[in-house]
Amino acid sequence: MWKSLKRALVGDPISSEQAQHERLSKKTALAVFSSDALSSVAYSTEAILLVLLAAGSVAIGYLVPIVVGITILLAILTLSYRQTIHAYPSGGGAYIVAKDNLGTQPGLVAGSALLVDYILTVAVSVSAGVAAITSATQGTRLDFLHEHRVALCILIVVLIALINLRGVRESGAIFAGPTYLFILSMLALVVVGFVRYYATGEVMPTPPAGAVAHDPSVGPLGPGALTGGALVWLLMRAFAAGCTALTGVEAISNGIPAFKRPESKNAAGTLTWMAVVMTTLILGTGFLAYKLNAHPSSSGEETLVSLMARHTFGTGVFYYFVQAATAAILVLAANTSFADFPRLASLLAADRFLPRQFANRGDRLVFSNGIVILAVLAVVLIIIFKGQEQAMLPLYAVGVFLSFTLSQSGMVVHWLRERNREENRARIIRQEAEESIHRTVDPSAATHARERLRALERDRGGNWLTATLVNGAGACITFVVLVVITVTKFTHGAWAVIVLIPLLVVMFRAINGHYRLVAAQLRLDGVSPSRPRMHHRIIVPVSGIHRGVLPALDYARSLSANGGHEITAVYVEINPENTEEVRRQWETWGGGVHLKVLHSPFRSITSPLINFISEESCRHGDSITTIVLPEFVPRAWWQQLLHNQTALLLKGKLLFARNVVVTSVPHHLRR
Amino acid sequence: MWKSLKRALVGDPISSEQAQHERLSKKTALAVFSSDALSSVAYSTEAILLVLLAAGSVAIGYLVPIVVGITILLAILTLSYRQTIHAYPSGGGAYIVAKDNLGTQPGLVAGSALLVDYILTVAVSVSAGVAAITSATQGTRLDFLHEHRVALCILIVVLIALINLRGVRESGAIFAGPTYLFILSMLALVVVGFVRYYATGEVMPTPPAGAVAHDPSVGPLGPGALTGGALVWLLMRAFAAGCTALTGVEAISNGIPAFKRPESKNAAGTLTWMAVVMTTLILGTGFLAYKLNAHPSSSGEETLVSLMARHTFGTGVFYYFVQAATAAILVLAANTSFADFPRLASLLAADRFLPRQFANRGDRLVFSNGIVILAVLAVVLIIIFKGQEQAMLPLYAVGVFLSFTLSQSGMVVHWLRERNREENRARIIRQEAEESIHRTVDPSAATHARERLRALERDRGGNWLTATLVNGAGACITFVVLVVITVTKFTHGAWAVIVLIPLLVVMFRAINGHYRLVAAQLRLDGVSPSRPRMHHRIIVPVSGIHRGVLPALDYARSLSANGGHEITAVYVEINPENTEEVRRQWETWGGGVHLKVLHSPFRSITSPLINFISEESCRHGDSITTIVLPEFVPRAWWQQLLHNQTALLLKGKLLFARNVVVTSVPHHLRR
Repeated sequence: MWKSLKRALVGDPISSEQAQHERLSKKTALAVFSSDALSSVAYSTEAILLVLLAAGSVAIGYLVPIVVGITILLAILTLSYRQTIHAYPSGGGAYIVAKDNLGTQPGLVAGSALLVDYILTVAVSVSAGVAAITSATQGTRLDFLHEHRVALCILIVVLIALINLRGVRESGAIFAGPTYLFILSMLALVVVGFVRYYATGEVMPTPPAGAVAHDPSVGPLGPGALTGGALVWLLMRAFAAGCTALTGVEAISNGIPAFKRPESKNAAGTLTWMAVVMTTLILGTGFLAYKLNAHPSSSGEETLVSLMARHTFGTGVFYYFVQAATAAILVLAANTSFADFPRLASLLAADRFLPRQFANRGDRLVFSNGIVILAVLAVVLIIIFKGQEQAMLPLYAVGVFLSFTLSQSGMVVHWLRERNREENRARIIRQEAEESIHRTVDPSAATHARERLRALERDRGGNWLTATLVNGAGACITFVVLVVITVTKFTHGAWAVIVLIPLLVVMFRAINGHYRLVAAQLRLDGVSPSRPRMHHRIIVPVSGIHRGVLPALDYARSLSANGGHEITAVYVEINPENTEEVRRQWETWGGGVHLKVLHSPFRSITSPLINFISEESCRHGDSITTIVLPEFVPRAWWQQLLHNQTALLLKGKLLFARNVVVTSVPHHLRR
Repeated sequence: MWKSLKRALVGDPISSEQAQHERLSKKTALAVFSSDALSSVAYSTEAILLVLLAAGSVAIGYLVPIVVGITILLAILTLSYRQTIHAYPSGGGAYIVAKDNLGTQPGLVAGSALLVDYILTVAVSVSAGVAAITSATQGTRLDFLHEHRVALCILIVVLIALINLRGVRESGAIFAGPTYLFILSMLALVVVGFVRYYATGEVMPTPPAGAVAHDPSVGPLGPGALTGGALVWLLMRAFAAGCTALTGVEAISNGIPAFKRPESKNAAGTLTWMAVVMTTLILGTGFLAYKLNAHPSSSGEETLVSLMARHTFGTGVFYYFVQAATAAILVLAANTSFADFPRLASLLAADRFLPRQFANRGDRLVFSNGIVILAVLAVVLIIIFKGQEQAMLPLYAVGVFLSFTLSQSGMVVHWLRERNREENRARIIRQEAEESIHRTVDPSAATHARERLRALERDRGGNWLTATLVNGAGACITFVVLVVITVTKFTHGAWAVIVLIPLLVVMFRAINGHYRLVAAQLRLDGVSPSRPRMHHRIIVPVSGIHRGVLPALDYARSLSANGGHEITAVYVEINPENTEEVRRQWETWGGGVHLKVLHSPFRSITSPLINFISEESCRHGDSITTIVLPEFVPRAWWQQLLHNQTALLLKGKLLFARNVVVTSVPHHLRR
């Protein structure tokens, strides 16, 4: 039953040979990998405004410079990551780049930062998607949805997980539509919004004073009154809040192997397109929000996008279209993580830093265990934060920018190494050429060697220097942003991530240490291929004389009779009145096997048995003691509860005994 | 570690031979078995008043007649149960009496009613005890306890369960003190209360109008204005509410075997004493509450006892003493159920109506499983009802009076049967005597026979008639009360019990049916003591060539070599690149065993193995297939998670295969 349910939900198994077909075209890849990055527009502008407006309505004036700053950061990141994509065509996630170039420890830090980030992506995106829905339904008959937002979030996470368990190409097909609809609807919002603004000059109504929570730490209302330090602090916090717009930029560089061939070229092109679209949307919504003097509510009842769309289109078909597209892309943004989290977990598992179950592809060719774990952890986060995405944002950007920094630094080291390798090669060529010039008698060979030398001089220096500078700049800037985010958001929740990342690294190390120890213990060094035969002793615990015991007794006797092994049946006496009867029946049914009766003053069945078995196996240390255990197998699971779990307890305890082997002989109940 | 924790909490094991020493003296038994019945005084008067006062302040006038009615009911019950105790010296719970005399079905109904009742006793008593504590702490620095009442209740249930897991005599010693202190403090409250009232004439302040919830269904304020029907309904509801005072009266008749010898006499004496004390307390508090014109608050912030004690003693040392004693006896009343629930469950389990685990005495001679289950269910109830005992009361008395009725009816049948038996015996004696009178030639023998006849006439009729009348009256009255309680409280929660009891009976029947089926299948009829030898086939699944596989291979070879059984090693190929290497290594390490390679297009390890094993065991249906399974045993539990659970999955699936035996050969990791 479980099996057919699984097939209905997940689909039929896919064989390993079909693997190559599950690749993404550029258009589908843009939908699959950029939904996370694009969709952040739906909450990042709101996050900036909430910080600014807490200092007073006039602080909205800082929105535009901050938005422009964020798009500059995006441009630098895009250039950086294009280089990564070309240098790591098999997938250049921060984990791989940092591990290859900076060492295992930074690699693990990047890896744990990314894992945390992916979980947050799911939780934040789904919560924001539900917020888009409940913004649209407020005041209508569906108003009750707001109360059940947590349940709604969980339902959506489960649905996404199921779709991903079906496999990556199918999910691509499902997700292409909404991503393009979102881009379209946001462009329409920006264009129509500006046209309407310049035509009518109408701005949005400001909520009554007091409706917006005023943050007393930033001083009096009006940014003009802010002192230098407080102003810098305000701008830093607003910028840090806006940086959540950049989460997801790295998604493509992690997922290169999912692209059609040529993978790197397709991935780089997709990344550029994504950056162009993102820049347009970030600038467009930012400017529009500034011009319309938008004041999102800090209570989270209606999102900024919803407010602007309502103002621009009125509460009609177009408004609902914007909300639906926003909800759809946000909900689907979570899908990026469902592609990346399992992939990263499988890399970590292949390097033995996570349980190896994460490296197994399920029968639909996806890393099923990673998908399930991600869904579970995201649901936990959603429950903790009651599905409020703005409350989760402070935890969000820390991991992203930590992995950005490590990845860019790794690329700098990568280029410096490339240069060394190139220079070594150049030195060898030069030596060869110079030697051939000096030694040769053939002038054409000398001319050829001189040309090679000149070409070498021309080529060198250019490529690696640009690359190093681009990635170096990226590393520096993302590091500065990381510090800003950490400092400004530390008390709002970022501390949790700062604590969690080292803990995860410690866990990775512990798991790795265990696997190394096991591998060392399993090596065959020093073992002789020809080993002495074992001698056996057999013990059959019996609970009485009935049909359930006979198969085990027969089995033990057939083992023993052929090899002449010693065999003992053991009966634990709880009630002495029954013992005589058991002994008498044993005469008939025991088949000549010796019956040993154990006393149990404290009425336990397992303890006397365990003691007897350990004594026997100690006394005969050179032989293997086989416990032949009669076991009931009832027809229904609930019936299992009705029988004493003695066999289960015995097996659990005997697992740790030396030189003891347990054999279960089932007796199947027919009814 | 778990073991030493258990020993510290529960104590060292007690051997079966010490069983006789764990008996209760009369004084200790009164404390252990009557705490439930006595403690109900702490909430039953309040329950009556809450019903009456909802009809208006003047309705308090009906308190006294209702209280008197309840004590009359108590007297009848006591007489009834004294007879039960003498007729059933080995423990005459409602289950046994009803089953013996009325049949299995009524017995099971009584049994399930009692089980439900015991769970409710724990939940109600502990909640009321916590209410006594929070009544005393209100307005003091410990006021916060009121918020945490549910947590406090759960803590107390867990503590009682632990004490009971230690064994019954020790719990008796702990509980004797508080019971007698409660009796003392309540007597002091009643005596000082009356003295003070007659000396000063002061009554308690009535809360402002509106503070008491008025029940519009009972008509206008003032009982004089109540019409006939409404008045009867009010009195019925108040009486039903007061009947919760009688819960626990049956406790002694269930627990006779725990008394010192002579058990019946001691138990009957203890019951009478308990009834005398209960009558005193019920009448005393009832009259006092009436005289003082007490108005308990319906919001449950302060209990009636607390209000009266505050009024009588002032908020001083004596007040706190009363509250402490009340809380103590209520909390300890739950203990009655912890003696009775496991005992009844063990009776049901011995008759195979509950899983047989409930019939096992733990290593401290108590029925540990029953104690643990009771604690868990009581905690669930407390959480559902948020620890408000007045909300649970409507569920409470239904089960009690149902079992009262069934038990008394059973006793009526018992006496009628006794009379039949007696009459049969008398008829035989009379026949013998008459024959000897007619035939004899010896006049003195005839005189002797005549005397015997006369004595017979004198004795008969008296005993059984009284007994039948007493129990018959008890049965009728408790049945009427049961109907009153069910009707008046049906919508307040009694319906849940009415639904639950048949469900429990169905469950009992299903469990019993399963055990009967199993017993029938285990019977040895038709089995021959000399059975043919089995032929073996051995399969060793291997995951590669390493140290973990060698012990299993050695074991299989030693089984096979002696008996000449066929042996096959099986390797599942996930990655074809590794197969050649495995085959090559097998030449060295395989020891001549044939290696079969299975392909797995869908990357599953278990499915191809299971298919292979089922095919093999089908093809050779006359022989037993033994699967020798190499199994890793790591040193720490968390390491278990790091290894593929293939062995576990295989064992689970193979459990249901026919003619397949699974042998686990452990490979112990040393580090």
